[in-house]
Amino acid sequence: MTVFNKISDKEASGKVKEIFDEIKEARQITEIPNFWKTMANSPETLERTWRSLQQVMKKGALAPEIKELIYVAVSITNACEYCIKSHTLAAKKKGATDEMINEMIAIVGMANETNRLVEGYQVEVDDFLK
Amino acid sequence: MTVFNKISDKEASGKVKEIFDEIKEARQITEIPNFWKTMANSPETLERTWRSLQQVMKKGALAPEIKELIYVAVSITNACEYCIKSHTLAAKKKGATDEMINEMIAIVGMANETNRLVEGYQVEVDDFLK
Amino acid sequence: MTVFNKISDKEASGKVKEIFDEIKEARQITEIPNFWKTMANSPETLERTWRSLQQVMKKGALAPEIKELIYVAVSITNACEYCIKSHTLAAKKKGATDEMINEMIAIVGMANETNRLVEGYQVEVDDFLK
Amino acid sequence: MTVFNKISDKEASGKVKEIFDEIKEARQITEIPNFWKTMANSPETLERTWRSLQQVMKKGALAPEIKELIYVAVSITNACEYCIKSHTLAAKKKGATDEMINEMIAIVGMANETNRLVEGYQVEVDDFLK
Amino acid sequence: MTVFNKISDKEASGKVKEIFDEIKEARQITEIPNFWKTMANSPETLERTWRSLQQVMKKGALAPEIKELIYVAVSITNACEYCIKSHTLAAKKKGATDEMINEMIAIVGMANETNRLVEGYQVEVDDFLK
Amino acid sequence: MTVFNKISDKEASGKVKEIFDEIKEARQITEIPNFWKTMANSPETLERTWRSLQQVMKKGALAPEIKELIYVAVSITNACEYCIKSHTLAAKKKGATDEMINEMIAIVGMANETNRLVEGYQVEVDDFLK
Repeated sequence: MTVFNKISDKEASGKVKEIFDEIKEARQITEIPNFWKTMANSPETLERTWRSLQQVMKKGALAPEIKELIYVAVSITNACEYCIKSHTLAAKKKGATDEMINEMIAIVGMANETNRLVEGYQVEVDDFLK
Repeated sequence: MTVFNKISDKEASGKVKEIFDEIKEARQITEIPNFWKTMANSPETLERTWRSLQQVMKKGALAPEIKELIYVAVSITNACEYCIKSHTLAAKKKGATDEMINEMIAIVGMANETNRLVEGYQVEVDDFLK
Repeated sequence: MTVFNKISDKEASGKVKEIFDEIKEARQITEIPNFWKTMANSPETLERTWRSLQQVMKKGALAPEIKELIYVAVSITNACEYCIKSHTLAAKKKGATDEMINEMIAIVGMANETNRLVEGYQVEVDDFLK
Repeated sequence: MTVFNKISDKEASGKVKEIFDEIKEARQITEIPNFWKTMANSPETLERTWRSLQQVMKKGALAPEIKELIYVAVSITNACEYCIKSHTLAAKKKGATDEMINEMIAIVGMANETNRLVEGYQVEVDDFLK
Repeated sequence: MTVFNKISDKEASGKVKEIFDEIKEARQITEIPNFWKTMANSPETLERTWRSLQQVMKKGALAPEIKELIYVAVSITNACEYCIKSHTLAAKKKGATDEMINEMIAIVGMANETNRLVEGYQVEVDDFLK
Repeated sequence: MTVFNKISDKEASGKVKEIFDEIKEARQITEIPNFWKTMANSPETLERTWRSLQQVMKKGALAPEIKELIYVAVSITNACEYCIKSHTLAAKKKGATDEMINEMIAIVGMANETNRLVEGYQVEVDDFLK
């Protein structure tokens, strides 16, 4: 084995069990997703990541489904399959429509294109942008 | 000179002048930003990029300021200074508040982190995500 | 077929066979891994990559397992599954513990996060860093 | 202004002042670096990032200077100038020698190369790596 | 389902059918590839992407097979399996030899390496490059 | 100082002087560019990188100016200013026209866009591509 195993719900104890219980309660699910089962190899990373995500993804000035769409936009740019799939699902559950997802993907495509046009032509920053 | 010069408003002619006029009209500005002045080295790229952005960034299922925030999120992930600065300004003009921008940046940070936690631990895609 | 086949140990001849023999000797293995079997499509790239890696990964000021962990950190950032798996295994063989790997992954996550916070907020380089 | 200002030590209050004081105490410095001054635009992000970094970068199974070198390796891969400069300095302060930094950079270069050789040739994962 | 289904040739209607017909005609194929079947979830993105690619990849100052090789070089750097495979095939069909592909991959590897050596050592831009 | 100084032509000795002389001879220049002056902090990296580039960039199945354009395409994708500028200049010196550079940049833009459309829609690899 070159990478880490998943820690099942039954194997969880101490800090890991505590966070697993929080996840199930907060998400209203009965089965822990593989992301968290795998993070459990490092209880410290599991706890910190869970608490950080709770803070960052909570309802704020941006609606929850918009936050998920931004999450997906970054994950697409980084080509993270798991992240794209899980946060696309989360976006849908929180109210994002197919139309919104289609529009988000189109923006991600164009931004990745113009980001490189800017580099390719070494565009100088305008004074009004400084 | 290793890269391309900017084409000023006065030097513009033909297709380039036509697009420059469209940009000034659509954006209600009198001075063409460096991005477009530089793209003008390839009239074909200038026109295609302008028309594509018009289509992608128009009001749709997502509000215009949200579209700009997604644009910035990708540009941050790709470290494109010009794009971050110009689309942050566009987001503000279209109504994005500092609070919304702060939240967007926090999400970009977390997504970039968890994207790599997923890779580092080689997290297996759950059945419910397939 | 859109990509390249593997060159098996038996098909190897000339420069390829020579490098395959060096790899088996240096690594104390009897079966050539797919990475090298595939590089063999370009004997020049095979030889240059093997010799370069021998130089870069040899014991130096950094311990061999630390070098492998740095290799994995980059591979995680680039989402290269093969590289993550093969260099995680190499790190373990050279003495890296699970605790060290967990800590490395946590750093990779945080670095990817703060790299983007720096871009998002366009943090100015301090004078003491210049 | 298209991006955020720095919050100076004198402007800091409440949560921001508290974290600024912790940073000065922990790092034994009298002037807050620009990274933290800028993060202070979002007190929540400031606090979370500071606490997360304290946890991740503390002495563990990996020596502090090694942790900094891994941080730099990721920052080089992402081309984050501020992060490269600040964490290279931190690595030196914690004991990393020029020789160690040179070796780390060489590994980052080679890993970025072979990551792409793997993609270019679409190398199949060996059974012993699964 | 967390992502989008493919739109089959039979389900296609209106704008989608029109573009599908153009693709089959231009490429002289009878079966639409998955890329286009999936883009069809957004008829607007389907049409814009197809027309943009037609423009960008047409014969110009660069030969068609060279254009495909550049496309593959970028796709390798971004680790996009589908894109690497489909554009490698396109390059071959348009006349790229295995030797040309091997050389392109070697360049992609070296460029990714020296790009990071430049960042790692923070190489200053020479006056003659400004 | 947080990063490395340049080694001037006058300070060069031993292996470094030898490579500097080779570079001046091969490139027919009298002043060593900053890239090599900085690599000289690690004579081993200097020599290996110089020899590797000589091998990879030599005339082969691909013309020298095409090799440089592929180098630039990768460097744009990675946003490496120094590399974009130096290899754009090299491409021009070897015969690349502005039209070729414009076309290359347009391809880099489109490839970066469609790479993300593929990820965003999680396009399935066609059987004919396997």
